[in-house]
Amino acid sequence: MAQARIKGVLSPVVTPFKADLSPDTRRFIAHCKWLVSQNCGLAVFGTNSEANSMAAEERMALLDALVASGVDPQRMMPGTGACSLTETVKVTAHATKHGVAGVLMLPPFYYKGVSDEGLFRHFSEVVQRVGDARLRIYLYHIPPVAQVPITHALVERLLKAYPGQIAGMKDSSDDWPHTKSMIDAFAKAGFDVFSGNEKPLVENVKSGGAGCISATANINPGAIAETYTKVGAPEGDQLQKKINDVRGVMQGYVMIPAMKHLIAHYGQDPGWTVVRPPLVEVTAEQGRESIAKLEALGFAMPGLRQAMQQAAE
Amino acid sequence: MAQARIKGVLSPVVTPFKADLSPDTRRFIAHCKWLVSQNCGLAVFGTNSEANSMAAEERMALLDALVASGVDPQRMMPGTGACSLTETVKVTAHATKHGVAGVLMLPPFYYKGVSDEGLFRHFSEVVQRVGDARLRIYLYHIPPVAQVPITHALVERLLKAYPGQIAGMKDSSDDWPHTKSMIDAFAKAGFDVFSGNEKPLVENVKSGGAGCISATANINPGAIAETYTKVGAPEGDQLQKKINDVRGVMQGYVMIPAMKHLIAHYGQDPGWTVVRPPLVEVTAEQGRESIAKLEALGFAMPGLRQAMQQAAE
Repeated sequence: MAQARIKGVLSPVVTPFKADLSPDTRRFIAHCKWLVSQNCGLAVFGTNSEANSMAAEERMALLDALVASGVDPQRMMPGTGACSLTETVKVTAHATKHGVAGVLMLPPFYYKGVSDEGLFRHFSEVVQRVGDARLRIYLYHIPPVAQVPITHALVERLLKAYPGQIAGMKDSSDDWPHTKSMIDAFAKAGFDVFSGNEKPLVENVKSGGAGCISATANINPGAIAETYTKVGAPEGDQLQKKINDVRGVMQGYVMIPAMKHLIAHYGQDPGWTVVRPPLVEVTAEQGRESIAKLEALGFAMPGLRQAMQQAAE
Repeated sequence: MAQARIKGVLSPVVTPFKADLSPDTRRFIAHCKWLVSQNCGLAVFGTNSEANSMAAEERMALLDALVASGVDPQRMMPGTGACSLTETVKVTAHATKHGVAGVLMLPPFYYKGVSDEGLFRHFSEVVQRVGDARLRIYLYHIPPVAQVPITHALVERLLKAYPGQIAGMKDSSDDWPHTKSMIDAFAKAGFDVFSGNEKPLVENVKSGGAGCISATANINPGAIAETYTKVGAPEGDQLQKKINDVRGVMQGYVMIPAMKHLIAHYGQDPGWTVVRPPLVEVTAEQGRESIAKLEALGFAMPGLRQAMQQAAE
């Protein structure tokens, strides 16, 4: 029997690095376990994970370690899309064999202005070469970064060709009407549309979407996950407002280093601030300012310090 | 004693694929040898090589085979830049150990709007981690595709920090005043600026640049290389006009599949038309039309058919 599809709130898990810039497996697993404890799924190796700043082997080794640590693969949606067909197939097959809930797949993003025909062929080859009935692909539409869009016409064609494997999308257009147009067009075919951040979370779920995969679910996972469970309840709109206020503060900074600064601060674990080039850490002043603004909103990261301390023991 | 720097005309060698989309080593070596016979250097694994549509291991295996075939590594400038520091270091070290003339290095191109500080850290880590005195980096500025520029300020800082390793750049801005500004600023420091196509070749060399690395050097290598040797001679401007006319025809098509179609046609080797997704081949009509336009200009690919036939034997 098929497992239930993954839905709700997922975090594109930030990846900790050691001082020598190698992935820090211990801190990675600790953060993942904390996120799961806050009722978030794990979209490891997304944009906010600096996944494309890691080689395929580094990502596969982290996934092996995460699964070995006992976290349920059905809570995971690893990013596996790369510029090359061959790397995409290798990493996708590896994740699928681990029994993950699905994979989040960027289009090949080096060439710009490519055709839907070319993108269809790429995804089609991936499905056929992976050749695993468990494969569930969530298409990753993030035009501000990848610059290569996932169009309605492409989704329609892929869904028709591979209804079992094309499971949904993450829409990081930051354009709710666009996300709703995808829900309206394809949700009835079983295509699960996640918003790329939590700002339209209540609207997403009310419209038939699947939830959100949001950067800020790295630092505010519990509150966002609670909002998801309260859609339609009297407090839903108030919860939405509160999580949006936190998001609003974070949007004033470069998101990845700013979130790592917060995890270092609230986790009392200074090693968390390291980013890989081409990113750079936030300044001490930006860090102090972001914390002050968040604390004025009553922000906290409950249980994070204990999670990081336990992992260090 | 240090070898003389590579200069003149280089071809970003198109990569042939078999019907199953795997790299076709035999045809690749045949094409490289033909290009060298036409006095072109080999910028293998560039944008026109579909290099980013291949995994690192595929590119390294092709380079191993090319060197093993007897082509002089000092005629090679393989592309080695990737989104991740770790892959860039691995592939760059591999090429450098082969004794190549230099490497053409894209900036990490997934994240957009990154700082010069972040890019400096990336290239700096690459130089330090490769740790090979033979390393010569040619920075690859191609904003229409990579979307991440190599600025004057970044070049200045890198040249100051690593005068022995930062050897030059390929400027694919298609903006001659920009290229000239790089020559004017840095050529006196021994920084070799290649234009990203042959249109400003005479001007490039007269201004102190190093030549060009041009897509169309895959199909028109001899004439472009001859133009380079005749800069300043009476026939230089006429040769420049002739190669520009060929370039002008090709710019009416998607360059990579259009060039592969021409190699298939003039090489009498139909297997050459295969491209990897997300690219698609040109239509038969586009192919016929491009050939008719080129033949009206007296275009030919001398020796290509024999080169492909010999390789097939």
